[in-house]
Amino acid sequence: MTVVTIIEYLAVIAAAIYGMLLASRTGMDFVGSFAVAFLAAFGGGTLRDLFLNRDELFWIVNPHYPITVFVICIIGAFTIDHLPRIKPLLLLPDSLGMAFFTVVGTVIALEAQDSWFIAALMGAITGTFGGVLADVVCNEVPSLFTPAPLCATCSFTGAWVYIIGDYFRMEQVSLMIASAAVVVVFRLLAVRFNWRFPPLRSA
Amino acid sequence: MTVVTIIEYLAVIAAAIYGMLLASRTGMDFVGSFAVAFLAAFGGGTLRDLFLNRDELFWIVNPHYPITVFVICIIGAFTIDHLPRIKPLLLLPDSLGMAFFTVVGTVIALEAQDSWFIAALMGAITGTFGGVLADVVCNEVPSLFTPAPLCATCSFTGAWVYIIGDYFRMEQVSLMIASAAVVVVFRLLAVRFNWRFPPLRSA
Amino acid sequence: MTVVTIIEYLAVIAAAIYGMLLASRTGMDFVGSFAVAFLAAFGGGTLRDLFLNRDELFWIVNPHYPITVFVICIIGAFTIDHLPRIKPLLLLPDSLGMAFFTVVGTVIALEAQDSWFIAALMGAITGTFGGVLADVVCNEVPSLFTPAPLCATCSFTGAWVYIIGDYFRMEQVSLMIASAAVVVVFRLLAVRFNWRFPPLRSA
Repeated sequence: MTVVTIIEYLAVIAAAIYGMLLASRTGMDFVGSFAVAFLAAFGGGTLRDLFLNRDELFWIVNPHYPITVFVICIIGAFTIDHLPRIKPLLLLPDSLGMAFFTVVGTVIALEAQDSWFIAALMGAITGTFGGVLADVVCNEVPSLFTPAPLCATCSFTGAWVYIIGDYFRMEQVSLMIASAAVVVVFRLLAVRFNWRFPPLRSA
Repeated sequence: MTVVTIIEYLAVIAAAIYGMLLASRTGMDFVGSFAVAFLAAFGGGTLRDLFLNRDELFWIVNPHYPITVFVICIIGAFTIDHLPRIKPLLLLPDSLGMAFFTVVGTVIALEAQDSWFIAALMGAITGTFGGVLADVVCNEVPSLFTPAPLCATCSFTGAWVYIIGDYFRMEQVSLMIASAAVVVVFRLLAVRFNWRFPPLRSA
Repeated sequence: MTVVTIIEYLAVIAAAIYGMLLASRTGMDFVGSFAVAFLAAFGGGTLRDLFLNRDELFWIVNPHYPITVFVICIIGAFTIDHLPRIKPLLLLPDSLGMAFFTVVGTVIALEAQDSWFIAALMGAITGTFGGVLADVVCNEVPSLFTPAPLCATCSFTGAWVYIIGDYFRMEQVSLMIASAAVVVVFRLLAVRFNWRFPPLRSA
């Protein structure tokens, strides 16, 4: 079990918790919450694996990933009534999932092909696409496409941190943790201080 | 022509009829109805084939599948005005398509990899995803994500019936028919008696 | 650098400009405009490459494609305020992108498999799907699914022009240009004179 696998597993757990909490907020039942948690946990990595034409999807090689998501949703179904319903609660699993998936996606894309720009894009896609899918299904406007606090930009930045550190041959485990930390801290600050790009059109 | 191919062909026909009828209800033109019928007929199986990294998509190896869908939509364009517009009419082709696709998806996933849980998931994805896509495009809220009569659960159950029967080496053709029947009957009963999961949040 | 590559590059540029302009109309920021331009430029061809199980996606083999889209969006961010905001401005890059992608998609699909019908479908998917994705994300109802001026039909027709010309061994470069011209002219006429299919249901 490599460090990449451990970080991937943490990403799956964080993203599944995010999806399950989000689904419960929008009145879904157990099947809906599993579907949303599934999309949040596997959406980004599936796109990455398909785009890079990898032989097997990461959640098919590791069938305990979807089983873990299933268990999280069962636990959620019995405990959700005792959890507070506040929206900020969603922020932490969302940020953690995004950070871990960004790092894993970047690592895998760097191994699979040569372009740095593509690797950074794959990191950002792996990091954010699951959350976008979950938002769409829950009828939330995905913050990726509106002038909301920076989201994809945090992921993209973290991916570049990893790529540059990798170029300078930094030790991999520390570099992965540092890149993930950049994503989380950048994201939390962006939400806290409402950092955002202006809309393209003035008025 | 194997039994799997025959059942797959029946699934394509049923799902295409469902998609064409659904599109006609929402005021689409011929191109729209073909697009919706195409999504309903090939959405689930395409996702399965991509996820399992099969060499060729089932509707590219069998180009008469999309041609059949095209012909169904042409026939529909000339006869739809004489058909009643009642919503229950949609239920039968929807259930049959779901049942047949569930069985085919489970068979193929069992051949392609080892995990039973993944095979059941693939059966449910193959069975339900085409209908979800068609619903989304027609601006219906997909019943998969709301507390509606059980849908994915019927498909998932039928997939497990097949997997368990297969483990006990039951004769394949009978087992496929039995599993499909479980899906159809379960689904019709769920709609008739409004069986559903409660939403996760009380109140 | 083959003619196919040149036409593909023109298609990417036209589609990216379309996506960027569309995003700016709907109040998106820089990240949103890049995401929409990316979907418009790569959505159709990615689907084609996945469906045909090609070894590498066209925008991963050519990493300068996404970089070009990125640069177009940066230029757009600084110049968009000086551009008029009129909707007809969108029509030309949309039609050109659709035409070039249709031709490239048809060429590639004819090389990858034998069915003419599948090749024409792939041409139409490559030509139109990027625009559909961009429309969906920008909350425009995709004209593909409503009785709007012909769109997919223009693409489908252009694909058949190429396929038939190819069967009669016409010279490839002229044929590609002729097919693309058919798509653009057909599309502009359809919008100008409001050519459309009737909805399936009368009243």
